[in-house]
Amino acid sequence: MSLYNQIAGRSVERLAALSDGVFAVAMTLLVLDLHTPAVEAVHSERDLWLALGAIGPRLAIYAMTFVTLGIFWNGQQAQLNHLAHSDRSLSWIHIAFLFAVWLTPFSTTLLAGFTTYRVALLAYWLNILLLGTLLYASWVCAVGSHLVNQDMPAHVSTAIKRRILIAQSLYAAGALLCLVNTYVSIVCIVLVQLNYAIAPRLPWRRKV
Amino acid sequence: MSLYNQIAGRSVERLAALSDGVFAVAMTLLVLDLHTPAVEAVHSERDLWLALGAIGPRLAIYAMTFVTLGIFWNGQQAQLNHLAHSDRSLSWIHIAFLFAVWLTPFSTTLLAGFTTYRVALLAYWLNILLLGTLLYASWVCAVGSHLVNQDMPAHVSTAIKRRILIAQSLYAAGALLCLVNTYVSIVCIVLVQLNYAIAPRLPWRRKV
Amino acid sequence: MSLYNQIAGRSVERLAALSDGVFAVAMTLLVLDLHTPAVEAVHSERDLWLALGAIGPRLAIYAMTFVTLGIFWNGQQAQLNHLAHSDRSLSWIHIAFLFAVWLTPFSTTLLAGFTTYRVALLAYWLNILLLGTLLYASWVCAVGSHLVNQDMPAHVSTAIKRRILIAQSLYAAGALLCLVNTYVSIVCIVLVQLNYAIAPRLPWRRKV
Amino acid sequence: MSLYNQIAGRSVERLAALSDGVFAVAMTLLVLDLHTPAVEAVHSERDLWLALGAIGPRLAIYAMTFVTLGIFWNGQQAQLNHLAHSDRSLSWIHIAFLFAVWLTPFSTTLLAGFTTYRVALLAYWLNILLLGTLLYASWVCAVGSHLVNQDMPAHVSTAIKRRILIAQSLYAAGALLCLVNTYVSIVCIVLVQLNYAIAPRLPWRRKV
Repeated sequence: MSLYNQIAGRSVERLAALSDGVFAVAMTLLVLDLHTPAVEAVHSERDLWLALGAIGPRLAIYAMTFVTLGIFWNGQQAQLNHLAHSDRSLSWIHIAFLFAVWLTPFSTTLLAGFTTYRVALLAYWLNILLLGTLLYASWVCAVGSHLVNQDMPAHVSTAIKRRILIAQSLYAAGALLCLVNTYVSIVCIVLVQLNYAIAPRLPWRRKV
Repeated sequence: MSLYNQIAGRSVERLAALSDGVFAVAMTLLVLDLHTPAVEAVHSERDLWLALGAIGPRLAIYAMTFVTLGIFWNGQQAQLNHLAHSDRSLSWIHIAFLFAVWLTPFSTTLLAGFTTYRVALLAYWLNILLLGTLLYASWVCAVGSHLVNQDMPAHVSTAIKRRILIAQSLYAAGALLCLVNTYVSIVCIVLVQLNYAIAPRLPWRRKV
Repeated sequence: MSLYNQIAGRSVERLAALSDGVFAVAMTLLVLDLHTPAVEAVHSERDLWLALGAIGPRLAIYAMTFVTLGIFWNGQQAQLNHLAHSDRSLSWIHIAFLFAVWLTPFSTTLLAGFTTYRVALLAYWLNILLLGTLLYASWVCAVGSHLVNQDMPAHVSTAIKRRILIAQSLYAAGALLCLVNTYVSIVCIVLVQLNYAIAPRLPWRRKV
Repeated sequence: MSLYNQIAGRSVERLAALSDGVFAVAMTLLVLDLHTPAVEAVHSERDLWLALGAIGPRLAIYAMTFVTLGIFWNGQQAQLNHLAHSDRSLSWIHIAFLFAVWLTPFSTTLLAGFTTYRVALLAYWLNILLLGTLLYASWVCAVGSHLVNQDMPAHVSTAIKRRILIAQSLYAAGALLCLVNTYVSIVCIVLVQLNYAIAPRLPWRRKV
């Protein structure tokens, strides 16, 4: 068995390809739930305008799913870029991570449908916690098993770990606010997410 | 945070892989809406012929979605090919671009279902405008952050930017024609698209 | 415009990645139509056995779709492997090819549902003809535009073209037999397909 | 024909890309069956809690599908990593393998819906047997046709083949236990699967 472990799951490229595939399908599948308004129900420009307006909230949820998945795609990518090769343990942690990715559209839709329910918020937060925990575990595993590139600067490892810990602390704090009010809690979590998505664009804005 | 930005989102290959995945799923998913005629409703060759004829318009819409997505896949690819590496800002602009890609099947189907409605035309044009704007922004970001290959000829950057500006001007002009008549407007936009798809094949025809 | 053509659509890798994505989704999507038997309708081992037997023909159709798509995936791959780079014309021919790929599950399901109808057979054959024609056109374009690897032996080009012509002649002959009887025609086409899929395994069998 | 065989299906990268695509879609598609609870049916936190609890078993099935697909993705990857190039025979064995991959979500759902039926267990086991047989055949073909890397140590081939044989023996023994009781049989098979998925993580746990 240990011999097989030496030869299995060593390709970072294929792990990345499988991940990109799962992310791409998870990001895109929801389009099936986005139906165009029924032709019979629309008799004027105003009807169509209202019908499209009614789709708006759902569109906002899907945009939020894109942002959530984008954050963790970036996070996973930052790790994989520094790996010289993979091994079976790491492959399995990433397959578990992909399972959590697969859950994201579900938990996002759940939260959007039940904004006043603490259970929905808890489920959403547990999903994010699972994603963060598995990403952290995968990095600990990669460093512990000497799978990272030899020329990686020492501070990279600290940056990756600190990043996950800070983000997860903010998410946990946001989720805790649901004891006060779920809306406050949702706004906080969304702000944390937008911070991670939009923040890096600010320096570019200054440059241009 | 700035340290993390240095190590995150640097792989052009993975950005390209995620994009190809989203494009492939967006292009292919609509097949689920393309049902074969019900066996019970068909009793002669002529019935089947008519049933297939009834599917024709929908097939034309999907072909148009393929053309639209093909144009922007080519446009994005032209940029990514010239990048030495990516960064987090650029990754996020491309994730936003993929969100607009994801909207394309929806807005195309909307336009096809409501050909006489200006709102549908507006929505379709806004989708194309969003795609163009994000592609332009991604190139400005790539050049401004010195992410392009050092050996890229100077005129490439101009060509990529001019290309987007001209195409978007033509689309905007076509969309404006809806003040006259939505059919005129649709025909104009489709002609612009076909021009971008088929035009490059003309020199080849001459060669062969 | 000609300048943009020089910089657009040059990556064979990304064309291959998009193609693999479309093939993978087209191959896999049909699983959504394959429902497990309803728990309420099954009360004994025999019921389940019969229910699974009823799914059998559908499974055979999907297997046939896999074979059809596998044949053309192999055909496209044989071409792409010999390209040094791509250009915009070639990209667009391949996008049209992917549209025909996308039609394959539809035309296969149609033929399976209407085995006695010449129209269904005609539609299926037109799909295969379209795939073959576009593959042939893409190779003519690639050779005509000097996109193939310089070290490609001269006989490769002849082999690729002859292969498509012979296969398409066999398919056309098989389709023509529908003037006699559609079943004869289907059996012929399936035999041609199985020949292309299984034949290359025969030499291996001899080796083992 | 033999000339065409020399030039077709030679790219391991594209075979891997197609496989990753099929695995990614097969892993992700099931999310469409995972509906959030209906807003009308939920009136309290407790209702939502119960509704989510009712989704639990289905989630467990999907997790099991992820594990099954993960095991065979790892198995296929271990082989592809050692190939110098592919050929048409090998491509077709892998396309057949992907067909069996495509069946996995179906047979897993079937087993989960009919846990007390031997027919369901038989179908599930046949799926696993098919996957194992095709993986074994693909390796025999790769070694027999001298497609493996020249620098591959001799013991790798033995390890890959022994691995499949041992795993399949355990699965077959587990399936045979259905003569006693299907539950015993399912527990055995799941334990074998978890062993292959979690076992390699144990050494890592010791390291950390």
